[in-house]
Amino acid sequence: MTDEDFMLLALKEARKAAASDEVPIGAILADPQSGRVIAKAHNKSEFGNDATAHAEILVIRKACRKLKTKRLWGLDLYVTLEPCTMCAAAVSFARIRRLVFGAADIKGGAVLNGVCFYEQPTCHHRPEIVSGICKEECGQLLKDFFKQKR
Amino acid sequence: MTDEDFMLLALKEARKAAASDEVPIGAILADPQSGRVIAKAHNKSEFGNDATAHAEILVIRKACRKLKTKRLWGLDLYVTLEPCTMCAAAVSFARIRRLVFGAADIKGGAVLNGVCFYEQPTCHHRPEIVSGICKEECGQLLKDFFKQKR
Repeated sequence: MTDEDFMLLALKEARKAAASDEVPIGAILADPQSGRVIAKAHNKSEFGNDATAHAEILVIRKACRKLKTKRLWGLDLYVTLEPCTMCAAAVSFARIRRLVFGAADIKGGAVLNGVCFYEQPTCHHRPEIVSGICKEECGQLLKDFFKQKR
Repeated sequence: MTDEDFMLLALKEARKAAASDEVPIGAILADPQSGRVIAKAHNKSEFGNDATAHAEILVIRKACRKLKTKRLWGLDLYVTLEPCTMCAAAVSFARIRRLVFGAADIKGGAVLNGVCFYEQPTCHHRPEIVSGICKEECGQLLKDFFKQKR
């Protein structure tokens, strides 16, 4: 499985969000050793009655529950959009090995944009970062969603 | 009910965390109009198998579920320690009116320390901030906990 393969699975999750009228963002947690997907989630913040229900938070919580641990050492997170400040910090707390994202988010991102959390001294675990995987597809899905909303 | 009254309730939550061998941080969400406590929570990140289970995230999720909304307009959050980057951003997403905290957190805080999230252009809702309420008691509880761990 390549980064693109895993991102296509995250995109599939994002499309599930769109189908529920949620902002289409999807995430996958994968074990790079076995190639196994540990958890999948999509954004549910609009109708889930939970301000924290971003795809990344949900997938981290699912994986932690499944593996009965608070530390996801060695796992890789694939997410269609650059994580926000809340999610970037959650990725760090969960000790995720690699963070792979699709489209950049200038307005709300916190990895290459905004607070650039992983470069800060209050960040105590920095994942390896890969950006731009399937970025056109990830970005287009969001553009189409908001266009249809207008 | 004064800020101190609500913070004493948050401290009571923090002590529950300590009793479960969790880092003693407690949080309360209150409706300042009615003086009613909407939700209470304490940190469960160590044994809760959830990297995101900080007191603030848990109390926001509880209140959202209870009030069937993702936006906690008009509610005030009381927390014994300065929120971290993840929680500071969650407070903003939840549209909390006022954030009142006890002890400052130089190493991990994100309000007056670290990324100073509410001063950043990627922060789209800034709560009113009050710091230092019962700070000695809030800080001492943490110091005692870590001293006993060593």
